[in-house]
Amino acid sequence: GSGADNDLYINQAVVFIEDAIQYRSINHRVDSKSIWLYRWYYSRTCQWILSLTITIILALAFIEKPSSLTVTSDVRYRPPAWNPPCGLTESIELLCFLVFIVDVSVKSYLIGWEEFWKNKWLMAYILTLIVSLTDWIVSLSLFCPEAVRIRRILRPFFLLQNSSMMKKTLKSINSTLPEMASVVLLLAVHLSLFTMFAMLLFARTKDGQQDKEWVRYFRNLPDSLTSLLVLLTTANNPDVMIPAYSKNRAYSIFFILFTVLGNLFLMNLLTAIIYNQFRGYLLKSVQSSLFRRRLGIRAAFEVLSSLKETPATAQQSCVSTGALRRVLQKVEMDYRCKQAIMRSLKMCSCDQLSAAQFQKLFEELDKDAIKQHPPSPEYQSNFMQKMQFAFGHPYFGYLGNVVALANIVSICVVLVMDADKQPSERDDFFLGAINCFFILYYLLEMLLKILAMGLKRYLSYPSNRFDGLLTVILLVLEIATFSVYGFPHPGWRPEFVGLLSLWDMVRLVNMLIVFRFLRIIPNMKFMALVVTTLLDLVKNLRAFAGILVVVFYAFAITGIMLFKDAVGPLGNTSILSILPCFCTLSCASTFDHKFLFLLFQTFFYIKKVVVLSFKEKCDFMALFQAEVICHLLYLLSVHLICRWANIYFVAWWLISSVIWVNLFIALLLENFIHKWDRRCHREPLSDIEYQRTVELMFRDVLEEPTEEELMEKLHQHPHLQLCR
Amino acid sequence: GSGADNDLYINQAVVFIEDAIQYRSINHRVDSKSIWLYRWYYSRTCQWILSLTITIILALAFIEKPSSLTVTSDVRYRPPAWNPPCGLTESIELLCFLVFIVDVSVKSYLIGWEEFWKNKWLMAYILTLIVSLTDWIVSLSLFCPEAVRIRRILRPFFLLQNSSMMKKTLKSINSTLPEMASVVLLLAVHLSLFTMFAMLLFARTKDGQQDKEWVRYFRNLPDSLTSLLVLLTTANNPDVMIPAYSKNRAYSIFFILFTVLGNLFLMNLLTAIIYNQFRGYLLKSVQSSLFRRRLGIRAAFEVLSSLKETPATAQQSCVSTGALRRVLQKVEMDYRCKQAIMRSLKMCSCDQLSAAQFQKLFEELDKDAIKQHPPSPEYQSNFMQKMQFAFGHPYFGYLGNVVALANIVSICVVLVMDADKQPSERDDFFLGAINCFFILYYLLEMLLKILAMGLKRYLSYPSNRFDGLLTVILLVLEIATFSVYGFPHPGWRPEFVGLLSLWDMVRLVNMLIVFRFLRIIPNMKFMALVVTTLLDLVKNLRAFAGILVVVFYAFAITGIMLFKDAVGPLGNTSILSILPCFCTLSCASTFDHKFLFLLFQTFFYIKKVVVLSFKEKCDFMALFQAEVICHLLYLLSVHLICRWANIYFVAWWLISSVIWVNLFIALLLENFIHKWDRRCHREPLSDIEYQRTVELMFRDVLEEPTEEELMEKLHQHPHLQLCR
Repeated sequence: GSGADNDLYINQAVVFIEDAIQYRSINHRVDSKSIWLYRWYYSRTCQWILSLTITIILALAFIEKPSSLTVTSDVRYRPPAWNPPCGLTESIELLCFLVFIVDVSVKSYLIGWEEFWKNKWLMAYILTLIVSLTDWIVSLSLFCPEAVRIRRILRPFFLLQNSSMMKKTLKSINSTLPEMASVVLLLAVHLSLFTMFAMLLFARTKDGQQDKEWVRYFRNLPDSLTSLLVLLTTANNPDVMIPAYSKNRAYSIFFILFTVLGNLFLMNLLTAIIYNQFRGYLLKSVQSSLFRRRLGIRAAFEVLSSLKETPATAQQSCVSTGALRRVLQKVEMDYRCKQAIMRSLKMCSCDQLSAAQFQKLFEELDKDAIKQHPPSPEYQSNFMQKMQFAFGHPYFGYLGNVVALANIVSICVVLVMDADKQPSERDDFFLGAINCFFILYYLLEMLLKILAMGLKRYLSYPSNRFDGLLTVILLVLEIATFSVYGFPHPGWRPEFVGLLSLWDMVRLVNMLIVFRFLRIIPNMKFMALVVTTLLDLVKNLRAFAGILVVVFYAFAITGIMLFKDAVGPLGNTSILSILPCFCTLSCASTFDHKFLFLLFQTFFYIKKVVVLSFKEKCDFMALFQAEVICHLLYLLSVHLICRWANIYFVAWWLISSVIWVNLFIALLLENFIHKWDRRCHREPLSDIEYQRTVELMFRDVLEEPTEEELMEKLHQHPHLQLCR
Repeated sequence: GSGADNDLYINQAVVFIEDAIQYRSINHRVDSKSIWLYRWYYSRTCQWILSLTITIILALAFIEKPSSLTVTSDVRYRPPAWNPPCGLTESIELLCFLVFIVDVSVKSYLIGWEEFWKNKWLMAYILTLIVSLTDWIVSLSLFCPEAVRIRRILRPFFLLQNSSMMKKTLKSINSTLPEMASVVLLLAVHLSLFTMFAMLLFARTKDGQQDKEWVRYFRNLPDSLTSLLVLLTTANNPDVMIPAYSKNRAYSIFFILFTVLGNLFLMNLLTAIIYNQFRGYLLKSVQSSLFRRRLGIRAAFEVLSSLKETPATAQQSCVSTGALRRVLQKVEMDYRCKQAIMRSLKMCSCDQLSAAQFQKLFEELDKDAIKQHPPSPEYQSNFMQKMQFAFGHPYFGYLGNVVALANIVSICVVLVMDADKQPSERDDFFLGAINCFFILYYLLEMLLKILAMGLKRYLSYPSNRFDGLLTVILLVLEIATFSVYGFPHPGWRPEFVGLLSLWDMVRLVNMLIVFRFLRIIPNMKFMALVVTTLLDLVKNLRAFAGILVVVFYAFAITGIMLFKDAVGPLGNTSILSILPCFCTLSCASTFDHKFLFLLFQTFFYIKKVVVLSFKEKCDFMALFQAEVICHLLYLLSVHLICRWANIYFVAWWLISSVIWVNLFIALLLENFIHKWDRRCHREPLSDIEYQRTVELMFRDVLEEPTEEELMEKLHQHPHLQLCR
């Protein structure tokens, strides 16, 4: 009937507006049942359950078999890690897979059969699920052997496919790849030509004394390649040329040429290319977000305009304000935005809205959220008004900063004086007394500020919240200290009582005081700019960080699989697994062996260093080990581990250090330059705080989609039949 | 008389046009004697003498007293360096000073008294000369003691003041300093807060086993600062956190937070700021160059228009083509440009030139130099024409590249096979025979190409010149080898005969073949783009490189002065000077001590590594040295050298690695992005080669100065009185 039709149209409009708010595609089914399912699927609860499931399946690696969730990382003192029984983690995994299966079915149903075949992400999702489930069944039927682990590597895909921003970023990175590949190819040519040159230059001579360079760095092709690759990362910078340089100074020309060409030119060219390419793609993706928003609004307008309430005589299609009001009541959106749109709707005198007016109403969504601080209380008494003026004045805040600085300086002085004292000689009276005084001042400052500004206004400033919270914690700590150890007096010694010794308490208080000093940031103009840039960057960086997590997770799991025999836990019986431990125990200086050993058991950011110094330290160890057995074992391990570890870490270095860092620099350049330009245009923000996103950053360069583009796209909608 | 006046005007116009060509200021005296002096001063001979003098005075440091111009850098095997007698280098210096005195007097006279007082560079020049001469007199009157050396630090100033591009760049850098200082301040705050935090976190404990972190890295304030500063450069990256990490994994949060904030955010922010600031200033300086050029041309027009030949009736001032022709004949400029201007002048039908026409004539100066290759010879015979087609075809060049690649691969294979062979087992027959074949092919290729293209056209391509030269050298080497060692045969052993052994000859040939492989570059599109970008960069980078040389020279001389007692040559009797040598001799692994020691005696780019690993290696040495004496000596040297060396190298690191590298990245970004944008606009260059300068890079964004601006500037000229 017509009423049911009308309800359907209203519900469609609601969904389209919600799509517009969330920058979602509107290409989904629009019959009433599907709309109910769609809204249920994108409800907060459902999405929260999905996110939780992803988190759980990723976190499983921390308790799965080669786990190492122990406090110390030192293999000598570490208790054996808890190994969950076979079937525990697997059953959690199965639950997660079931959630994913529901997820993928709902998604596939909602976009419809035709669209499904075009959507590569969904296909990959289903494929991943099938592979994972097969792997799971095989694993469980063999009673959890260590060998089959493919599904673990595939896990981060679930994180990737759930975030549209991450998919978009990946697309941008993907478009940059051809240019990046060219530079990487150039780097490879550079490296290989110089390697051949080096092998010819530093060849073996008859005189054994003269060819130290050959022995250490250019013995054969893999050695030479590694030496120069490490030089490209500047880690072995003077060391690699010292033997040749001490033979003849002119040899340094070779190394300088290599470093200047490779490191200064080609590496920075990579930055330039990534910046140049990436700039455009980021803008493009923001532009497409804007298009999605406008399209959603326009779709809502079109379905509302086909409501029966609309007078058929009107030439142009239009929407009644009543219908829009009904839609708005049903839409889930930011309360502030909804209020603003409702207000504009009331102010609008006309009864019917044209498409342009409709779009204009929803422009509120694109606006910065402007946050107004609540007003200060108004005191009647003259004295109170004066107090309010004095303690609400910025100078009072500056005084607080000066006092905090004085506190920091006093702590620093005590630290320097106590640096060489034995713990038993230490006397905490001076610092205890000083800190007691300063903390009382902080408390007073907080109370006076609350008096002057009122509690609500005080708490509306983030800097005050930070300040107040730390002051309260400091006060609690101080009271706890005094109740246990009494008031400070000369000879107030750090004795161990209860949970924390006095010494630890005092250190904790000092650390918090140092941390509290960060409150000066908003008072320094340039610092404030830098910090807001950094905060924006963190917001815009979530997608990048997500991709990094995905790559990192896959690498870590691959590493565990590749090297589990080589560097297993102590309990492992493989001969190779004992090697690093043996070497670690007998030669105290080989940090990197130890570190490599730690790495595979934890998820810990390691950077290039392992690739770099691993090789060197191995060589170095060989020189110093007098024990024949260690030397032999070392040679064995080097041949079996070093080669693979090198390839593995070079790949990791390329992705994390070269590509990701350059992407980060590109984003930072974009962000900072935009911000800097804007700073010149308008006054620095005083009482008003803006919430910035990557969309807002580009607002002034974005193009509004035209009516024709929107209508063309609407007519291509696979499930929506427009009347006209 | 009028004729003399006319001659003066002509000469003035000549000078102004030459000023315009060279982007010089026109604010100099313009009477006939001064013009003669001016043209003499800026003649090639004079400027060449001046450059030579600057080179000589800078090069003096290589032979002055703590000199080390020896082949080996190893102090154990090095012969004592030659010490020039007192008075030799000093008299060369005096000659240089005399040239500089003439230079400064001429310069001061030419710009006039009033301008002189405004010109800070000239004042500084005179001051530098006075200080240097005073220092020279004191030094000579005390028979060249080592103590007084101030004039050596001042030397690079002479290089600086002679280049207007360098002065301009310095001005740009200077304007960027406030922003850079803000970030460096932020870095300092970051560093100091984290240092305090670290000292509180890694404090000394009662249990001696637990505080390894404190012992190694955070013993006192300077140690902690150094550890974290080094961490900021990522040199001691995992090492510094290993003791704490193996105690409790959570400690790694501190180090990760520090690295992410400091290294990823703040350091890259510095890049962003420098890029942002510098971009504008480079454009501005190019804009001012353009203004100088237009001003010079306009000034020439104005003086020519006041020539008596011009008809007085003309409303607008104008210049006769005859006068311009006379001027052009006298002007020293690029032959191609002069011809082009003369041609346009002939084509111009009118007898009188207006100001706009006059400017338009000289726009030839701004144009890219388009180089046309001479035509190929035209053969009569049909056979020769076919030959010409075949060997002039690009595919023949590609074939040559494939052959070169095959040669490289064969060398590589032989290298890998011979890697582990003893020198006595080696047999060079295979490689000798192969290379002989390949070199014959290269010769044939060269001859056929010359046949097809003609010698002139062949030589007009840089890639062919490179190719041909290397082929000829290879041929000569091969002939020399055969004449000494006979033709290759099995068992062709590397025996030492004459200047170079067969082995060395073969290696040299191989190296040249590897080098020759670079001819593929122009054939790969992306590579060609990158290489032209790099070449442009090198052109534009001269000013930066000059400033780096200035800073480096000053640092090196300061280093010599600061550390001459600590790390003097072996002959020095100071106890401290023997320390590093002693340690070097007794402990073979302390590269960095040795390297530090070498550094002060040579001018060698060292990068951050010394700061970084010096400290670590010192500690490390202390752990390993069993000999008590070396340990004691080591402690002494560490206290006296390490502290100073740290400060010195941190300063050097900041300037060379942080600021200069970022400037370089900024310039590379500018260059590359401009080039990349242009590549999309027009077709890749085929037969035409452009010569690009920093001026041309910005041409599309430059603004032409208006007539009013030019005339206003002309009326402000201190020495030129215009008639109207």
